Amino acid sequence: LAAAGHNLVVFNRTAAKADPLIAMGARRVNRPGYTASTGGIVISMVADDAALDEIVSQGDSIAERLAPGGIHISMSTVSPEVTRRLAKYHREFGSTMIAAPVFGRPNAAAAKQLWIALSGEARARETARPLLEAMGRKIFEFGDDPGAANVVKLAGNFMIAAAIEAMGEALAMSEKSGVDRDAVISMLAETIFAAPVYQGYGRTIASDSYSPAGFRLRLGKKDIELVLRASEQAGAPMPIASLLRDRFVGAIAKGRGELDWAAIALGALDDAGIKRGD
Amino acid sequence: LAAAGHNLVVFNRTAAKADPLIAMGARRVNRPGYTASTGGIVISMVADDAALDEIVSQGDSIAERLAPGGIHISMSTVSPEVTRRLAKYHREFGSTMIAAPVFGRPNAAAAKQLWIALSGEARARETARPLLEAMGRKIFEFGDDPGAANVVKLAGNFMIAAAIEAMGEALAMSEKSGVDRDAVISMLAETIFAAPVYQGYGRTIASDSYSPAGFRLRLGKKDIELVLRASEQAGAPMPIASLLRDRFVGAIAKGRGELDWAAIALGALDDAGIKRGD
Amino acid sequence: LAAAGHNLVVFNRTAAKADPLIAMGARRVNRPGYTASTGGIVISMVADDAALDEIVSQGDSIAERLAPGGIHISMSTVSPEVTRRLAKYHREFGSTMIAAPVFGRPNAAAAKQLWIALSGEARARETARPLLEAMGRKIFEFGDDPGAANVVKLAGNFMIAAAIEAMGEALAMSEKSGVDRDAVISMLAETIFAAPVYQGYGRTIASDSYSPAGFRLRLGKKDIELVLRASEQAGAPMPIASLLRDRFVGAIAKGRGELDWAAIALGALDDAGIKRGD
Amino acid sequence: LAAAGHNLVVFNRTAAKADPLIAMGARRVNRPGYTASTGGIVISMVADDAALDEIVSQGDSIAERLAPGGIHISMSTVSPEVTRRLAKYHREFGSTMIAAPVFGRPNAAAAKQLWIALSGEARARETARPLLEAMGRKIFEFGDDPGAANVVKLAGNFMIAAAIEAMGEALAMSEKSGVDRDAVISMLAETIFAAPVYQGYGRTIASDSYSPAGFRLRLGKKDIELVLRASEQAGAPMPIASLLRDRFVGAIAKGRGELDWAAIALGALDDAGIKRGD
Repeated sequence: LAAAGHNLVVFNRTAAKADPLIAMGARRVNRPGYTASTGGIVISMVADDAALDEIVSQGDSIAERLAPGGIHISMSTVSPEVTRRLAKYHREFGSTMIAAPVFGRPNAAAAKQLWIALSGEARARETARPLLEAMGRKIFEFGDDPGAANVVKLAGNFMIAAAIEAMGEALAMSEKSGVDRDAVISMLAETIFAAPVYQGYGRTIASDSYSPAGFRLRLGKKDIELVLRASEQAGAPMPIASLLRDRFVGAIAKGRGELDWAAIALGALDDAGIKRGD
Repeated sequence: LAAAGHNLVVFNRTAAKADPLIAMGARRVNRPGYTASTGGIVISMVADDAALDEIVSQGDSIAERLAPGGIHISMSTVSPEVTRRLAKYHREFGSTMIAAPVFGRPNAAAAKQLWIALSGEARARETARPLLEAMGRKIFEFGDDPGAANVVKLAGNFMIAAAIEAMGEALAMSEKSGVDRDAVISMLAETIFAAPVYQGYGRTIASDSYSPAGFRLRLGKKDIELVLRASEQAGAPMPIASLLRDRFVGAIAKGRGELDWAAIALGALDDAGIKRGD
Repeated sequence: LAAAGHNLVVFNRTAAKADPLIAMGARRVNRPGYTASTGGIVISMVADDAALDEIVSQGDSIAERLAPGGIHISMSTVSPEVTRRLAKYHREFGSTMIAAPVFGRPNAAAAKQLWIALSGEARARETARPLLEAMGRKIFEFGDDPGAANVVKLAGNFMIAAAIEAMGEALAMSEKSGVDRDAVISMLAETIFAAPVYQGYGRTIASDSYSPAGFRLRLGKKDIELVLRASEQAGAPMPIASLLRDRFVGAIAKGRGELDWAAIALGALDDAGIKRGD
Repeated sequence: LAAAGHNLVVFNRTAAKADPLIAMGARRVNRPGYTASTGGIVISMVADDAALDEIVSQGDSIAERLAPGGIHISMSTVSPEVTRRLAKYHREFGSTMIAAPVFGRPNAAAAKQLWIALSGEARARETARPLLEAMGRKIFEFGDDPGAANVVKLAGNFMIAAAIEAMGEALAMSEKSGVDRDAVISMLAETIFAAPVYQGYGRTIASDSYSPAGFRLRLGKKDIELVLRASEQAGAPMPIASLLRDRFVGAIAKGRGELDWAAIALGALDDAGIKRGD
């Protein structure tokens, strides 16, 4: 966004992380709410439901400071329900919150390689589009329900974790059958599974390279818990999500919380009695 | 192969299925063993372990009739153990059996779009390569263990079924959250899951189009049972495979055995209390 | 307790439920906190963590009104963590909270047939014992950690639900194998499983008699969620608990939330394609 | 039976195991088929389906040597389907096979403490009853289908293994919550779970005493596989049985095949990152 010439006002819990933007001309503020001004646009990315609730509705409330007419683009991975509740909260003040969670690795944003799911009030989506286009490769729209894009994000993260677990199981079986794991995943990720998820995580798993973490296992667990909450709220049991939750709880119990979340695949090796030097 | 000018001798349990090849000049025989002649090459694709055992070791044994020097290229989806046992059986007569299972939809063979996993005795693999290249897009080698290619095939089919189940769960949750299933899978299968498996089966699941079957659910169950047997033999538990087995058993109990195997995804809808008119 | 001659002060959200006690001489108050007086004893049984938190720490705080020297005997099925936190809260005021959850059907209390798990500060346990003995058949002590008795209660409720699910699966398989479900469970519950849980719930399941509910399915789900939270906090994956959660979510999605919680056993029948007229 | 004055002819694969009976006057034969004579009664207890098939239908066939009029009482834990098939085989010769599997620990037989499930042709059951009464505490009848008693036996063994797993999970969670495992299971097995299965295996698990084995884990796995086959044949998915299978496969992979089958409970400890010195 900075590169596209927008005037930015930034806040980061760890101030230093905003330094590159400040160097590009952005203005720093020392509270999240101060990023909002009447009729303006705020883009937020926070850790969880509680953090989003806090910046929206407590202290220097973004919802209140944006009103009237401002737009809050919420890009965090949070629950559909908190988005719906906080979107309503914005409306009470006359501002609007829409959801725009992203898929893509951290460095994908700068390279405009993010994919963005977008949902919420139609006019606000229209206003937000050019900004999002400056960040992402493609934007997918999911209608007026502000929680819809969060559902998509959770569905996607669940499917990634399920693919990791499936690869973990398939490769544990391959290894104990005397077949080279790297050869197996190389073939599959080049053919019927020729997609980023299988190529990237397949290599990670086959080579047991879980550190440094692209996405920490401890955070992955949070996402699976959001998935299970959505599953419960919707009334749709998700047995693979339940299995994944057990994998995450077990991985953390075994001291793997700071590894990449693909390290849940070590669970299948543990079950097979294979010890790695992790 | 016929198109490449090879002289073919063919057998099919359903004779009519071989008619197009006969029309291209192939010779028909009325027993599987008669396709084999001393020092020749036989390519087989049969339904299961028992059928492979039968053509190899009983009656007009292919293993015996090929000897000495002939090669049997086994392309079926069978267990690694039956392949290892029958490869040994061939060796006793002086012929060789190698495994070359394929990935790809039925019509992919004619279009040379198959991917082939290949393993077994090195010289026989070398001899077989040109023939396989006439059928497939690319050949992936897995060394001297004749069962290795079967392990890869089972790993791949397991991962496909796991992806189907994961999509089924994610889309059931999406639907009950009020989000359009087609929009969800369209985004995911165009971005982080841009692979044939997700694109093809994603569309099938989102549109509940399980008939006519590309691959019948009843046969898919057989494959998952091969996976579980391999898991047991290897000593590597595969909890998603166990879950899939229950899905297959349940789907057949509900009368879905003749649908496409992606219909196991209906299980997640059933669990969520959603009734379709199937 | 009333029968044992104690002077009771009672509060119930539904006032009429306290009428029998009033008739026996108890005094009614209109707020939970008013049951507490300096140095006295309060016995509470509430619906969930939030309700316990509310009566302890908000408004007319029981913790505060009991101090100094009073004892709060918490008999609810709540999380170990809320008990630990609120016990600490009591200590800050100089009162004590101990946990004494019970096993046994609702009418078991009047008949002195409850089994009580007891944990928390030693002196308070000693003081509470005679009161609890007036209610229960036997008291089992679990030491000074106030949360310990809650762990036991959750372990027990989990094991009951697991037994229900196991019976449901075994009887679905029996029925579809042509064997009389009632005969099967009668034998097992008279022999190797001759325990109240199997005898009571076995009959319920074999006869599909889920209404009226002894313990509502919707509340059973709450307990399994407490179990899963304890599993997560402890770092101990519980795969059967995960499976049970999916059963509960599915049962509620199918409109069975007001049935007895043993109705999760219908899930195994659903999976087997058996339709009952529920 | 020997104590009851019956004239016995005995065969055991390990001849020495029959010595005590020989000392009581029984006659030893050196082939299983030789225990059978025209119109007589044979009682068999063998390891698996294949062994039963062998003594019934191969070599000195029991089915043939009993005919006409003899009765084969099959007490093994085998599949309902093999029993049905072999009962039919007997009928072709004019002899009868009924099923009478037992519940109870090995030493329970001598003490007449076995519980027996009985099914098959009515007249043969009537004839067999007095013999079975000499061995068991109580006999439960399951009608004319010879496979019915096997279904009950598998249902019971499945429920035992499910109870073991549930205790394993509950106690792993308890331990990691800082609560004494022995105290937890002591309370539960004395109250709502006051049944032999919970008392015996509860103690085994809480004390990690898996050796010497009462029933070897490797054999327990065979039983769970019979359960899963019955589940499949019946068309009734059994998710806990699937989970148990993975526990057994994993336990054997970890070298626990010769421990008592309750050692599958170590799986929950492994998952929780708890290491025992096994």
